[in-house]
Amino acid sequence: MTTSKDHIIKSYDSELARLTGEIVRMGELAAAQLEAAIDVVERRDDRAANRVVANDDAIDTLEQEIGHDVIRLLALRAPMAGDLRNVFTALRIASDIERIGDYAANVAKRSIPLSMVAPIAPTRGLGLLAKLAAAEVRDVLSAYARQDAEQGYQVWKRDAELDEAYTGYFRQLLTYMMEDPRNITPCTHLLFMAKNIERIGDHATNIAENLWYQVYGEPLDKQRDKRDLTSNPEMPRLGG
Amino acid sequence: MTTSKDHIIKSYDSELARLTGEIVRMGELAAAQLEAAIDVVERRDDRAANRVVANDDAIDTLEQEIGHDVIRLLALRAPMAGDLRNVFTALRIASDIERIGDYAANVAKRSIPLSMVAPIAPTRGLGLLAKLAAAEVRDVLSAYARQDAEQGYQVWKRDAELDEAYTGYFRQLLTYMMEDPRNITPCTHLLFMAKNIERIGDHATNIAENLWYQVYGEPLDKQRDKRDLTSNPEMPRLGG
Repeated sequence: MTTSKDHIIKSYDSELARLTGEIVRMGELAAAQLEAAIDVVERRDDRAANRVVANDDAIDTLEQEIGHDVIRLLALRAPMAGDLRNVFTALRIASDIERIGDYAANVAKRSIPLSMVAPIAPTRGLGLLAKLAAAEVRDVLSAYARQDAEQGYQVWKRDAELDEAYTGYFRQLLTYMMEDPRNITPCTHLLFMAKNIERIGDHATNIAENLWYQVYGEPLDKQRDKRDLTSNPEMPRLGG
Repeated sequence: MTTSKDHIIKSYDSELARLTGEIVRMGELAAAQLEAAIDVVERRDDRAANRVVANDDAIDTLEQEIGHDVIRLLALRAPMAGDLRNVFTALRIASDIERIGDYAANVAKRSIPLSMVAPIAPTRGLGLLAKLAAAEVRDVLSAYARQDAEQGYQVWKRDAELDEAYTGYFRQLLTYMMEDPRNITPCTHLLFMAKNIERIGDHATNIAENLWYQVYGEPLDKQRDKRDLTSNPEMPRLGG
C-alpha cells in the first residue's frame, strides 16, 4: 500500500529529477552554443554570429524557469537539509551554465569585428581551446546527470590542459602583435575570445565542485593545479 | 499582547534584516578591495597586491555564510512567495558581490607582472575606471540597504558612463601598443584589468535589477543603454 508520505517523497524526487533534466538540457544548449560560436569564427559568417548571440536568450530563459521551479519546489515541499543541498546545487549549476552561455555568445559577437579587420587572423588555436572547453562542459554534465562525482573530478583535473593551451595561445598572439602593428586590433579580440573560453573551463570545474558537494556533502578540497600563467609574475617578459 | 504568530513574523524579519546587513558588509569589503587594487597598481606595490589577492578569501567566506544562513532561514521558516523572493534576491546579490571581489583580486594580481615589465605603463585611465566602478558598487549597496529601487535605477543608468570610459581607455591602449611593440605585453594586462573593472559595473547593474525586482516584484524591463563598443562591429578599424 502506498502511504501519503511515500507519495510526497516520490513527487519530490520526480520534481528533483525534472530539475536535473532541465539543467542538463540547458548545459547541452550552452555547449552547442560554444561549438556554433567557434564554427562562426572559422567560417567568418556574421549572420550566423548574430544567430548565436540571439540564441543566448533561450539559455537565460531556461535559467529563469529553473529559478521558478526551485521556488515552487521550496514553497510546496519545504525540503530539509540534504534535499535543500540538492536544490541549492541545482541553482548554482544553472548559474554556471548561464555564464558559459554568455561567454559563448561573446565569442560569437567578437567574431564580427574580427572578420572586418582580419581576413587571416590566427584562429586555429582558438578552435582548439573551444574543443577542449566544449568537451569539459559535455562531460561534466554527463557526470551530473548520473550523479557521478568521480567522473566530475576527472573533468576538474583535465581543466589544467585547457589552461596550458590558453597560455600557449596567449603567447602566440603576443608574437603576432609584435610582428606587425596591423595585427594588434584583431589579436586583442582573439585574446578576449580565448580568455572567455578559458573561463568556460573554470565554470565546468565549478560544476564538478558542486556535484562533488552534492554527492559527498563536503567540498572538493584538493588544491587546484593552476596553470594559467598569463596573470602570474612568472610570465616571460615578452616585449618588456 | 504578543501572539505566537507575531513572534514568528518578527523573528523572520529580523533574520532577513541580518541577511541584508551581511550582504551590505560583504559589498563594502568588495568595494574596498577594488580601491586597494587600484592603489596597488598606481604604487606598484607587489606585497600589497598579494594582500589584496589573499583578502578575497574573506569575501568568499562571507558568501558561504550567507548561503548557510539562507538554507537555515528556508528550513526553519519555510517562507512563502514574497518572502522567498527576498531570500532569492539576497542569494543573487551575494553572488554578484562575490564576483566583484574576484575581479578586484584579479586586477591586483595582474599588477605584479605589470610592475615587472612596464615602469611607466598608462595606468591613469585605469584608476578613473576603478573610481567610477567603486562608486557604482557603494551607491547600489546603499540603495539596497534602504530598499530604494529608484536610487538603484540611477546607478543602473550611470553604468553607461563606465562603459564609455572603458571604450575610450581601450582605444588609448591600442594606440600605445601600435606605437611601440614593447608596450604590447603591459598593455594586454591593462586591457584585461580594464575589462575586469567594466564587468564590475555590470554586476552593480545586476544588483540594481535584483533590488528592483525585490521591491516591485517585476523585472527592470527598460532596454539597457549599452555603450561598450569594443566588441561591436562599429568599432573603428584601428590597425586593420
